[in-house]
Amino acid sequence: MAKDPARKAGRWTTPADEALRWVRGTDLTTLDPAGTPGWTGTRADGEKEMTDRGDELADLQERLFAHGRTGGDRSVLLVLQGLDTSGKGGIVRHVVGMVDPQGVMHRGFGVPTQEERERGYLWRIRNALPRPGYVGVFDRSHHEQVLVVRVDKLEPEETWRRHYGELNEFEAEVASSGTEIVKVALMVSSDEQKKRLAKRLDRPDKHWKYNPSDIDVRLKLPEYLAAYQEMLDRTSTDVAPWYVVPADRKWYSRLAVTELLAGALRSLDLGWPPADFDVAAEKARLAAT
Amino acid sequence: MAKDPARKAGRWTTPADEALRWVRGTDLTTLDPAGTPGWTGTRADGEKEMTDRGDELADLQERLFAHGRTGGDRSVLLVLQGLDTSGKGGIVRHVVGMVDPQGVMHRGFGVPTQEERERGYLWRIRNALPRPGYVGVFDRSHHEQVLVVRVDKLEPEETWRRHYGELNEFEAEVASSGTEIVKVALMVSSDEQKKRLAKRLDRPDKHWKYNPSDIDVRLKLPEYLAAYQEMLDRTSTDVAPWYVVPADRKWYSRLAVTELLAGALRSLDLGWPPADFDVAAEKARLAAT
Repeated sequence: MAKDPARKAGRWTTPADEALRWVRGTDLTTLDPAGTPGWTGTRADGEKEMTDRGDELADLQERLFAHGRTGGDRSVLLVLQGLDTSGKGGIVRHVVGMVDPQGVMHRGFGVPTQEERERGYLWRIRNALPRPGYVGVFDRSHHEQVLVVRVDKLEPEETWRRHYGELNEFEAEVASSGTEIVKVALMVSSDEQKKRLAKRLDRPDKHWKYNPSDIDVRLKLPEYLAAYQEMLDRTSTDVAPWYVVPADRKWYSRLAVTELLAGALRSLDLGWPPADFDVAAEKARLAAT
Repeated sequence: MAKDPARKAGRWTTPADEALRWVRGTDLTTLDPAGTPGWTGTRADGEKEMTDRGDELADLQERLFAHGRTGGDRSVLLVLQGLDTSGKGGIVRHVVGMVDPQGVMHRGFGVPTQEERERGYLWRIRNALPRPGYVGVFDRSHHEQVLVVRVDKLEPEETWRRHYGELNEFEAEVASSGTEIVKVALMVSSDEQKKRLAKRLDRPDKHWKYNPSDIDVRLKLPEYLAAYQEMLDRTSTDVAPWYVVPADRKWYSRLAVTELLAGALRSLDLGWPPADFDVAAEKARLAAT
């Protein structure tokens, strides 16, 4: 029997978008944050696959950018949600970092400013949506409105409960304007989170990443899990599905998001834009200079 | 005599910021666009040096980001000017692409919109300035006001001539607010430009990068050189110096900008921010969770 090199080197036995897509009603507490759904292979295999996939990702992103430059209306929005230490920053650095920074619109969402609060929670989100041709990346997002707002009781329940429907309507509108939405929830275990926080406290070059409030959030993990569960169940839609990515193994979560992002770009099925000028005539003009 | 490995592998015989810094009154037409000022070594040496320097660049950028996250006010602004095909995009992709996209604010400046024209030419520039902790990258910039505006006679001479002083005042203000400014003018030869445009016309995957107006600009090269000459002479200041980078050899221009950007970051002399919390107490809190 012939060897199967793909199998030897590690591979997706189930496509990432299928293995990770949220199925309504799944019990989030049964998810293994150290798992590698859909992927068979070692860490080294995964890292190699990610590097290989990086070239494709860069090519797909350049096609999208070219499409935007020539009047196209498509874009991609990668939404990253996850608790502290779940590795959102590493995803941006290592996955998004594989494509041309010219084609990326990255935005982190922290505590809203006074102006942002007054203008409504979707105002700053709308302002940061990717323009045609761009890959937008949200580090946290409009979904905080049913996460921290719920857990920290920043609004009464009847108010934040209304947001589920608003979020879905908003995303349907964004999708219909040409944006492919990929929402990723990174799930880290309590033990792994503890290790990562300890590392931030141990290393002086990591102190700036630590905030005493990280512990406050950690103490509310069960409340956050409940908030994530309901967010996933209520805001995973056909046009803006959630993918739940185990995040205890960074190599896996980065590989998985690479694959999900590449899949979103691939689904746009963009070729190189045809010339909107007479190529032969331009060649002659250039030759004459 | 002991071998000098640095010499063998290629090295800066004159520091890049010294070798490339514009000296007022230099005749721009005497510059060799195929030169490699300050650098002794082959292309392979240069590429290796750039990769090695990339790690330092990423480390320096992370310190700047950490500084911004902890209340610091410093930032870096890399201004890229250059004619079509001079490789501005490649600099962003290959040099800026070596650092964390989370810490980069990239902005390309095309033909201003109606709103941008009405609000004055510095309005859109101010809006795109890097926030504290960020590396800002301008692909073209406020300097277009004395380049295309002059060459295409978009304003009367008495008007665009006023901009030199305004640009200097503006940059002095930006610098005094904590931004380290590095301005790079990429100089490509007429022959090399012709080759690069021909490539864009030959390859269907490059057609989107070509615009018939590229030839119009090419026919005005002497006027552009005169505009660059005066811009360099009049807007290279102590707080916002111009570096003129030969761009016929892409590996050199990328290596040079890597070195200039690293130098700007290095000059900020930023350590890791000290903890603004009690590390021991936080360790105890974490252990108790």
